[in-house]
Amino acid sequence: MSQPKALLFDVFGTVVDWRGSVIRQLEDFGAKQGRTADWAAFADAWRGLYQPSMEEVRSGRRPWTILDVLHRESLDSLLAEQGFTGLSEETVADLNKAWHRLDPWPDSVAGLTRLKSRHIVSSLSNGNIALLVEMAKFGGLPWDVVLCAETARAYKPLPDAYLTSAEQLGLAPGDCMMCAAHNDDLAAAQALGLQTAFICRPTEHGPVQSKDLAPTGDWTHAVGSMTELADALGC
Amino acid sequence: MSQPKALLFDVFGTVVDWRGSVIRQLEDFGAKQGRTADWAAFADAWRGLYQPSMEEVRSGRRPWTILDVLHRESLDSLLAEQGFTGLSEETVADLNKAWHRLDPWPDSVAGLTRLKSRHIVSSLSNGNIALLVEMAKFGGLPWDVVLCAETARAYKPLPDAYLTSAEQLGLAPGDCMMCAAHNDDLAAAQALGLQTAFICRPTEHGPVQSKDLAPTGDWTHAVGSMTELADALGC
Repeated sequence: MSQPKALLFDVFGTVVDWRGSVIRQLEDFGAKQGRTADWAAFADAWRGLYQPSMEEVRSGRRPWTILDVLHRESLDSLLAEQGFTGLSEETVADLNKAWHRLDPWPDSVAGLTRLKSRHIVSSLSNGNIALLVEMAKFGGLPWDVVLCAETARAYKPLPDAYLTSAEQLGLAPGDCMMCAAHNDDLAAAQALGLQTAFICRPTEHGPVQSKDLAPTGDWTHAVGSMTELADALGC
Repeated sequence: MSQPKALLFDVFGTVVDWRGSVIRQLEDFGAKQGRTADWAAFADAWRGLYQPSMEEVRSGRRPWTILDVLHRESLDSLLAEQGFTGLSEETVADLNKAWHRLDPWPDSVAGLTRLKSRHIVSSLSNGNIALLVEMAKFGGLPWDVVLCAETARAYKPLPDAYLTSAEQLGLAPGDCMMCAAHNDDLAAAQALGLQTAFICRPTEHGPVQSKDLAPTGDWTHAVGSMTELADALGC
């Protein structure tokens, strides 16, 4: 198999620690509001609404809608459930942007920087353009290009999310490598002819993670960090 | 007027010297083929077909088509006109990619790098994603994000090219600044509420340029280089 020309990265969990970063920002929000809550549970519940909200769009029951809007609707319903009332629009809009301010895993920037020297490094996230661009500025992620569900107009794991992204880069699927901490993302990509790299992130879901602790498929590479991926690809 | 959050750059002529770069590559092509021709005139004729080919798409007479395809059709017709026959598909495809290998003006990389420290720096070109990504790798252009006609599904100067790009960044038009060497591009952007920066490129069209030698509108800034724009914005 030839070296991939482009590396397409899942972002939430693979490149950034969404859970730790969202909990941190919920704690800041709680402190400002003078409220206590189980913020870890709140973060998990917010993320728990992620797949169901995208499924409405994937299924065609709902027209194309970007993730910022889906995140906001999920947040509004969780805040209402937990009895948060009287919050200003500015406060809620800023809290929703917690997803624009996610910390990279410690190896992400160094690994991406090395990989960029010999490959096109792109996001391929279900996040929207504004979310990913602000996150890159926040965390110093050196993307060559920001591809995502919004540029493909399809949420992963729908085939168009992968195939449209490869096509937009002018590449055959086999010249692209999907890099993700999630076996299901890689399975969808592999079925379409993309190369695959599993990057293990055993604490994405916190200390008691039960999923994606090891590669479950025959991936092109399986590594423990972005810098190990750079080693594996000779960068 | 507040500082812009995002700077959107026209690319052909503003960031890169398309004419000098295309002539250089046509000369290489000619040397390999053992043919002489007026390669500057060939480059100008190729560029001359640019606006008419996009107009077919803008007008709706032709469905959405990326610039790589339009460039190729223009090239095929020029090669036929000049009696080039028997060229391999690989040779013509590679020559068409001349537009992916355009040299930045000497101040572009340094200026963009400074501007990137305080602003989102994005392309807003009629080029397609693959063209712009390969060009950025070739010339070291440090884009935060690659926006273009393909991401907006509209060729400049149609309003959607500017408005969709601002929306995809989650920004109001007034938080964006269109930066271009072409007064007509800036006029279209200004009419929609974007801030504007004219960057004078008096040799874009060669030694006898008659157009865009000075700002013709009331632009937010008018400068002579990308580094002067960084000065003007305090970067």
